[in-house]
Amino acid sequence: MLYFIDIFGVVAFAISGVLVAQSKRMDPFGILIIAFVTATGGGMLRDVLIGDTPVIWMKNPVYVYLIFGATVFGILFRSKIDYLRTSLFLFDTIGIGLYTVIGVEKGLTAGLAPPICISLGIMSACFGGVIRDILCNEIPVIFSREIYATACFVGASCYLILLKLHVPTNINFVISVLVVIIIRLVAVRFKIALPSVYKD
Amino acid sequence: MLYFIDIFGVVAFAISGVLVAQSKRMDPFGILIIAFVTATGGGMLRDVLIGDTPVIWMKNPVYVYLIFGATVFGILFRSKIDYLRTSLFLFDTIGIGLYTVIGVEKGLTAGLAPPICISLGIMSACFGGVIRDILCNEIPVIFSREIYATACFVGASCYLILLKLHVPTNINFVISVLVVIIIRLVAVRFKIALPSVYKD
Amino acid sequence: MLYFIDIFGVVAFAISGVLVAQSKRMDPFGILIIAFVTATGGGMLRDVLIGDTPVIWMKNPVYVYLIFGATVFGILFRSKIDYLRTSLFLFDTIGIGLYTVIGVEKGLTAGLAPPICISLGIMSACFGGVIRDILCNEIPVIFSREIYATACFVGASCYLILLKLHVPTNINFVISVLVVIIIRLVAVRFKIALPSVYKD
Repeated sequence: MLYFIDIFGVVAFAISGVLVAQSKRMDPFGILIIAFVTATGGGMLRDVLIGDTPVIWMKNPVYVYLIFGATVFGILFRSKIDYLRTSLFLFDTIGIGLYTVIGVEKGLTAGLAPPICISLGIMSACFGGVIRDILCNEIPVIFSREIYATACFVGASCYLILLKLHVPTNINFVISVLVVIIIRLVAVRFKIALPSVYKD
Repeated sequence: MLYFIDIFGVVAFAISGVLVAQSKRMDPFGILIIAFVTATGGGMLRDVLIGDTPVIWMKNPVYVYLIFGATVFGILFRSKIDYLRTSLFLFDTIGIGLYTVIGVEKGLTAGLAPPICISLGIMSACFGGVIRDILCNEIPVIFSREIYATACFVGASCYLILLKLHVPTNINFVISVLVVIIIRLVAVRFKIALPSVYKD
Repeated sequence: MLYFIDIFGVVAFAISGVLVAQSKRMDPFGILIIAFVTATGGGMLRDVLIGDTPVIWMKNPVYVYLIFGATVFGILFRSKIDYLRTSLFLFDTIGIGLYTVIGVEKGLTAGLAPPICISLGIMSACFGGVIRDILCNEIPVIFSREIYATACFVGASCYLILLKLHVPTNINFVISVLVVIIIRLVAVRFKIALPSVYKD
């Protein structure tokens, strides 16, 4: 089950990368690279900073195949992909929730302090998109749409608190991922954003 | 003493990140990230390239708290922060001097050759700002205001030369940091820059 | 022989960085950094992701001297360098071929799967230019001129196939590097590009 969700997450992230790369009119190679960093960039950065190398996609070629497949799919069905936007958004949101908790877990395994684990959760979920935007020469979109990151922050904190309360890991995992997903869905549905810090 | 200067350096770098992020009208999350990379980016890159992981801020959560505090401060006192510019510039300059020598020391500890140690000193002091500018979609400001990096270069070389001359480490440290600080202050005060390489 | 080609490759990459940095009117320090990342960025990224640190140029200061020399040369002979464009293009192409096979070899040594080794070959040859373009605030040029990367892909695959066929390493090395070089030269000479994925 988890394995399938992980796969969905990677594919959803990859396709979101394909869409951005195509809007920049990149060639097939550029599209593939953008898909790749969108899907793996956050986890890759996390692993390098912790020192857990070779990074995950090098240990398991399945990721390379998946992202390659998603890129070919995205290129072939470019015009049809608009119909899939809702499903993609859902996969993407599930992926974010999942990546957040996986990031926190990695931090705990490495024996790091709670605030660091939360940072790693947010990094895993958000920095694929940050690297994608840098490669596309844009200011990362996440720096001005904060609910995305805030959802990860709340989910990551929730996981650590429930862990402290000795909630079984499986249940904790599901609850925390759901927290991320629900916050993001509700925020997008009702257009909720943090108050601006700019008066003018 | 050193500890306090280190803290001042981190805070000064973080606040300089807050100011840049606000000029790009980022949201609170974006501002926090920019503050974070400005303060830790140079040392983080250095540690990753040497292979000294997990990187420093993961081992000591104090950095996370400091940067979080500096970000909140910078957002709350946005309009007042202009009065602090001179103090900030001073902290920033002290931070640069300190980071330079710390970077050189790290290289020596890892058994690297002198020119590599100098590179690591410059990297530690300057690349937080470089990553900040990349995330803000600007050409790094340091690439066209070279005295900043030149000061680090001279300070780092000074440290290695005095080490060779068997000057005690404490005294060497203070002298080399002061060299960086004085070069930068004098250069800014008298608007000194290297001659341009462009005729037209 | 190999050593000389490696040196030519580094110098050619560094000078291509100098040319780009000068077109952005950077100061001498900025030019040096761009030359540095262009020549070492791909290999540096590869080594960090595999976990083979300290990265190569830290272990051998010759790279630092070479790049420094190439930068000084590029700045001094800025106006004359146009006459060298053909030679530079040739060195650059040889460098790409060489870096590709070295990257594949590194992956094999680390015990990674074939598709990962191919990715590492492409990364070694192409990502110096990608990081250069990011620092210069451009969308990486390689994302819209794909023959460059395609040549690396074919050369890397060729190396793995010939290895499987028990072709002696020396011969395999020469053949695979030549494959990259010839594909690139032919593609540039006859203006060959992959078909566009955009209809409009």
